[in-house]
Amino acid sequence: MQLLRSLCRIPAPAGNEVALTRFILDYVQRTQAAWRHQPVVIADDRFQDCVLLVFGQPRTAVFAHLDSIGFTVRYGRQLVRIGGPQAEAGYRLVGMDSQGQIDCTLTIDEETGELGYAFHRDIDRGTELTFYCDFRETDTTVQSCYLDNRLGVWNALRLCETLEHGVVAFSCWEEHGGGSVAYLAKFINETYGVRQALISDITWVTEGVHAGQGVAISLRDSLIPRRAYVDRIRAIATQSGIPHQLEVEGSGGSDAKELQHAAAPWDWCFIGAPEDHVHSPDELVDKRDIASMLALYQVLMQEL
Amino acid sequence: MQLLRSLCRIPAPAGNEVALTRFILDYVQRTQAAWRHQPVVIADDRFQDCVLLVFGQPRTAVFAHLDSIGFTVRYGRQLVRIGGPQAEAGYRLVGMDSQGQIDCTLTIDEETGELGYAFHRDIDRGTELTFYCDFRETDTTVQSCYLDNRLGVWNALRLCETLEHGVVAFSCWEEHGGGSVAYLAKFINETYGVRQALISDITWVTEGVHAGQGVAISLRDSLIPRRAYVDRIRAIATQSGIPHQLEVEGSGGSDAKELQHAAAPWDWCFIGAPEDHVHSPDELVDKRDIASMLALYQVLMQEL
Amino acid sequence: MQLLRSLCRIPAPAGNEVALTRFILDYVQRTQAAWRHQPVVIADDRFQDCVLLVFGQPRTAVFAHLDSIGFTVRYGRQLVRIGGPQAEAGYRLVGMDSQGQIDCTLTIDEETGELGYAFHRDIDRGTELTFYCDFRETDTTVQSCYLDNRLGVWNALRLCETLEHGVVAFSCWEEHGGGSVAYLAKFINETYGVRQALISDITWVTEGVHAGQGVAISLRDSLIPRRAYVDRIRAIATQSGIPHQLEVEGSGGSDAKELQHAAAPWDWCFIGAPEDHVHSPDELVDKRDIASMLALYQVLMQEL
Repeated sequence: MQLLRSLCRIPAPAGNEVALTRFILDYVQRTQAAWRHQPVVIADDRFQDCVLLVFGQPRTAVFAHLDSIGFTVRYGRQLVRIGGPQAEAGYRLVGMDSQGQIDCTLTIDEETGELGYAFHRDIDRGTELTFYCDFRETDTTVQSCYLDNRLGVWNALRLCETLEHGVVAFSCWEEHGGGSVAYLAKFINETYGVRQALISDITWVTEGVHAGQGVAISLRDSLIPRRAYVDRIRAIATQSGIPHQLEVEGSGGSDAKELQHAAAPWDWCFIGAPEDHVHSPDELVDKRDIASMLALYQVLMQEL
Repeated sequence: MQLLRSLCRIPAPAGNEVALTRFILDYVQRTQAAWRHQPVVIADDRFQDCVLLVFGQPRTAVFAHLDSIGFTVRYGRQLVRIGGPQAEAGYRLVGMDSQGQIDCTLTIDEETGELGYAFHRDIDRGTELTFYCDFRETDTTVQSCYLDNRLGVWNALRLCETLEHGVVAFSCWEEHGGGSVAYLAKFINETYGVRQALISDITWVTEGVHAGQGVAISLRDSLIPRRAYVDRIRAIATQSGIPHQLEVEGSGGSDAKELQHAAAPWDWCFIGAPEDHVHSPDELVDKRDIASMLALYQVLMQEL
Repeated sequence: MQLLRSLCRIPAPAGNEVALTRFILDYVQRTQAAWRHQPVVIADDRFQDCVLLVFGQPRTAVFAHLDSIGFTVRYGRQLVRIGGPQAEAGYRLVGMDSQGQIDCTLTIDEETGELGYAFHRDIDRGTELTFYCDFRETDTTVQSCYLDNRLGVWNALRLCETLEHGVVAFSCWEEHGGGSVAYLAKFINETYGVRQALISDITWVTEGVHAGQGVAISLRDSLIPRRAYVDRIRAIATQSGIPHQLEVEGSGGSDAKELQHAAAPWDWCFIGAPEDHVHSPDELVDKRDIASMLALYQVLMQEL
C-alpha cells in the first residue's frame, strides 16, 4: 500500500492535476522494466495533463481519473467547491500560494452555510485547497482522503504489471464536469479502433453494496450502459469466481459520461471497490474489495 | 395499425433496445421489396443497436428513437426510473429475469415516494421493467404505452415506402440522456454531407397544441433550433395544405440535443403528433395527427 | 462608442442571430482595408450564422458570442425565456411578426410568476422579443441592454485592427445552451492546429470584482480551466501593467463550456469587463474596464 499512500498524498484538484501526472510518469519510468509487457507512453501537449499507456494490440481501454475534489479560495475568506466534497467545520485543508505553504481549517457559516477558512493570514485568490491526507491502514482496511480515485489509479498501475493488450488512460477533471475523456476517447478510438471501456473508479457503500463483499460492477448510475456489454462482463466475472457485487443506482456519474456522449459507439462499464464516508477526508475501503477489483480487471482485460 | 401495435409491444427500455432493433431489421427485410426505392441498410458494431436506412442521395436525415422509458430493479423491492415515466400505484409492469417472465405491480411508498414493485418473488437486481402494453384503437384514436416513440418509428418506417432521397436513423437512449445520435450524426454528416434533420418523435397536448388539429412543428423546446431552417419548414408546410400546429415550449428535449451540440452545423426541427397522458401506459393520439405527420414528412423529405 | 451603440441595437436572440451576422460581415468589408493585417473571412453554410476571421498563422482563438437573451411568444399572451433574462414588469420589449413592428411591455402574473406581454394585438406564436435598446453614455460609463455580449463582439472587432496572428470567432446560441462552438472549435483546431482560446465576454460586478478596477481574468466559474494556462495569462497580464482583476466564481458559464467538452485539448480562459445590472435592459460597464479589456487582448494575442 506504499504506492497508494503516495498517490493519496499528492494534491491534484480538478484543473491542476500536474503534480500527479508527473508522479505517474516518473513511477512508470522507474517501474516498467519489471512489467511483463512494455507499454507505449503517450503524454504530450495533445493530451494536456493526461497520460496514456498503450499495451500490445488493445481491445479495451481502462479509464482512471487523476483529479480530486477540493476547494478554491474566493474573496475575503470564502471557499468555492471543486467537485462535490463533503464539508464539515474543522476539516484540515492544505495548499500553497505565493506566500508559501497553507495548513488551515474549513469553516461553515451557520446562517448562510457559506464555506470559508480559518488561517492566520489571507490566502491568494484562486488558490486550490485539498484535504490534509491522514492515511490509515489496518489489516483489513485503508482509510484516507482521495481513495476516490487514487485507488482507481492504483488499480490501473498495478494492472500494468501483467497487462498484455489494452490502453490505460489517466484522465483529468472528472470530479468537476469532465473535460479530457472526450479527446482521449477520440484518440484511442481513431488510433486503435478500441470502443470497449472499463471505468476504474470508486463507488459507494449502500444498502445494496457492502464493504468486503467484492468489487462492484455497476449496472447503471445516472446513465445506463448498453445491457449487452454489461452482460458479457457479468458472465466473465461469474465464470472467474472472483467476488463481486452488482450495483444499481439512479444517480452518480463518472468518466463514462463523456464516453456515452462521444461521437463514437463506446461500450463502458463502471467497475470499482465501494467506499464509505464518500468525498470526505475519511474515505474507507475494505482490502478484500481492492484485491477483487484488481483481480477482476486482470481477467476482464484478457477476456473482453 | 397492426405495425404500430407490434412496435408498442416490444420491450426496448433505454440501454436495452436490441429486441426492437431486431424487429426493425426483420421488418425492413420482409417489406422493402414493396418500397418504391431500396435503401442501403447499415446496422453493425459501429452503430451498437442503432439502424440506418440510406435512400438515394440524401439531403435530410430523419431521427426516430427506438428506446422507451421504464424502471430498473434496485435492491430489496425498490425501482429506479429509466427516463421519466409517470408513476402511479397499480401500474402493471412486465419483464424477464433469470427465473422467467415477470408480471408485477408498481408500488409507491406513501411517506418517501420511493418506487417499488409487488410480486410473488424477488426480481433479479438490474432487471428492466416496462409498462404492460394494452393497445387500444378506436375509429379516431390509438392508445397504448410507448406511442412515444413507437409512433415516431412507425412514421419513419411508413415514410420509407415512398422515400427517394434521405437517411432514416433509428437511435437509442433518447429517453435517458442520449448516447447514440452523436455518432450517428457524425457518420451521416461525414459520409453523405447531410446536415438537415427532422426529429420524428411525439410531443404533448397542451393549452396551445390540441389533439386532432394536425402534426406539431416545434419552434422550440428547452433548445432553440435555427430560425432560418424552421421558417423554411413552415413555408413548405403552409404551401402543402397539410394540417399542422406550431408548438412553443420552454422545456422538453429530444434527439435534437445531440445534434445541437454536435461538432457539425446541424439544422434540426422536431415534428410530431401530440399525445395526451404522456409517459404513462395510456398515451393517446388522434389518428388525424398521425396521418398529417406522415403526410408532412413525405412532403418535407422531397422539398427540403 | 458608435460601433458599440450600433451593435447593441441589432436584435439577435439565440437561434436568430442572422441580422447581427450580416452587420459584422458588412462592417468587416467596410473596415478591413484600414486594419494592419488582412484576415481570411469564413462565413458559409458550414458555419450557420457564425463568422470566422483568420489572421496570419494563428496560435490562439478569440470567441465572442453574437446572440443575446430575450423572450419567445408562446400561447395566449405568454412568454418563454431565451437564456436567462431578468424579468421586471414594465420592461419594454420589441420585435417583428407577420403584422409588423412590435413595441410592447413585459408583464408578470403576480400569483404564478408567469411571464407575458401587454400589447394592443396578439403577437404571432414563436416571435422573438428583445429588450428595447436605450443606449446611454457618460464620460465614464456605457449603459444598454446587451452589453453582454456586444461589448465582447466590439472588443473582438477592435482587436482586429492590429491583430497579426489569431482567429476571431463569432459564435451563436451561447445564451441558450450553446450549439456552434463545438463545430467552430473543431474546424479551428483541425485546420490551424490552434488549441488556445480566450473568451471575449462580459462578467459580473461582485463583492470581489469592482467596476473601474480593470478587466476581469476569470480563474473559474462553473467550470475550471487548466491552471497552467491561466497562470501563463496571469503572468503576461502582470508583466504588461494593464489593470486587471482576478475573478473566482462557483457558477456561470460561457462559450468555454463547449471547448472544455470538445474532443480536442482546448485551453481556455474567460477575460472580460465586469458589468452591473446583468441581463437587464440597464447593463452598465465602466469605460476603463473596456479599455483594459482591449489592451489586454492585444498583448495576449501577441504573447501567448
